[in-house]
Amino acid sequence: MFEIDPAFPATSQAVGDLALSHVRLQGDARFPWIVLIPRIAAARELEDLQAGERDVLIEEVLRAGAAVRAVAEALGRPASKLNVAQLGNVTPQLHVHVIARRPDDAAWPAPVWGFGVAEAYTPTALETALAAARTTLGL
Amino acid sequence: MFEIDPAFPATSQAVGDLALSHVRLQGDARFPWIVLIPRIAAARELEDLQAGERDVLIEEVLRAGAAVRAVAEALGRPASKLNVAQLGNVTPQLHVHVIARRPDDAAWPAPVWGFGVAEAYTPTALETALAAARTTLGL
Repeated sequence: MFEIDPAFPATSQAVGDLALSHVRLQGDARFPWIVLIPRIAAARELEDLQAGERDVLIEEVLRAGAAVRAVAEALGRPASKLNVAQLGNVTPQLHVHVIARRPDDAAWPAPVWGFGVAEAYTPTALETALAAARTTLGL
Repeated sequence: MFEIDPAFPATSQAVGDLALSHVRLQGDARFPWIVLIPRIAAARELEDLQAGERDVLIEEVLRAGAAVRAVAEALGRPASKLNVAQLGNVTPQLHVHVIARRPDDAAWPAPVWGFGVAEAYTPTALETALAAARTTLGL
């Protein structure tokens, strides 16, 4: 049975569910950042998905890209680059990061993982970000 | 017209061409590491590909995963995790990193980008790595 690793709720907010993936907004106001978690029990790598599931996942990555662009826009910092990654060295449950980047962000041009300390969203900014993500994803 | 950004030949060796992507072995003996460069002019993001091209790309990512596992095995350090990422903050031409990781590698559990300094392959190890990659990819 599929269950979300408790590491995700500890660091992110639920956005909703797409056909394959549970969608979360990472709780780090420095970067508009969505995490997709395919709802497939015991999956750790892309090779643990069926080919049809991978085709769905890559389209959900595209949709998450549009969503983080919308979050970035809503927060007044439009994105100029997307970063997409499936790592899982720390939390092995299969998940894909989709992050909006810009040359004046905290970590640019370095990747965001392990860079400094997450900054909490203000309640208003979090509401704005979640609304922009949900509207873009139709959730 | 599609041309490879000169940043890639400066840091990696050509492995060959799959249906969509040019395949390169990153010149860093610390990590079995393949870079896929879809041969689509001016592409910078996944959203710059057609849906059918993305479906091919994700399957080429799977094949590159098998190839870096084979490289890791051939070099006597079997992989326990794959890392996959499309970043492009420094070199914007669309490319996907596929990297074999293990808990005793130089950067674990951190991502590899920007971590320390690349170590050159010995000529023998490079030949072993390229042969393992090409055999696995049918190139």
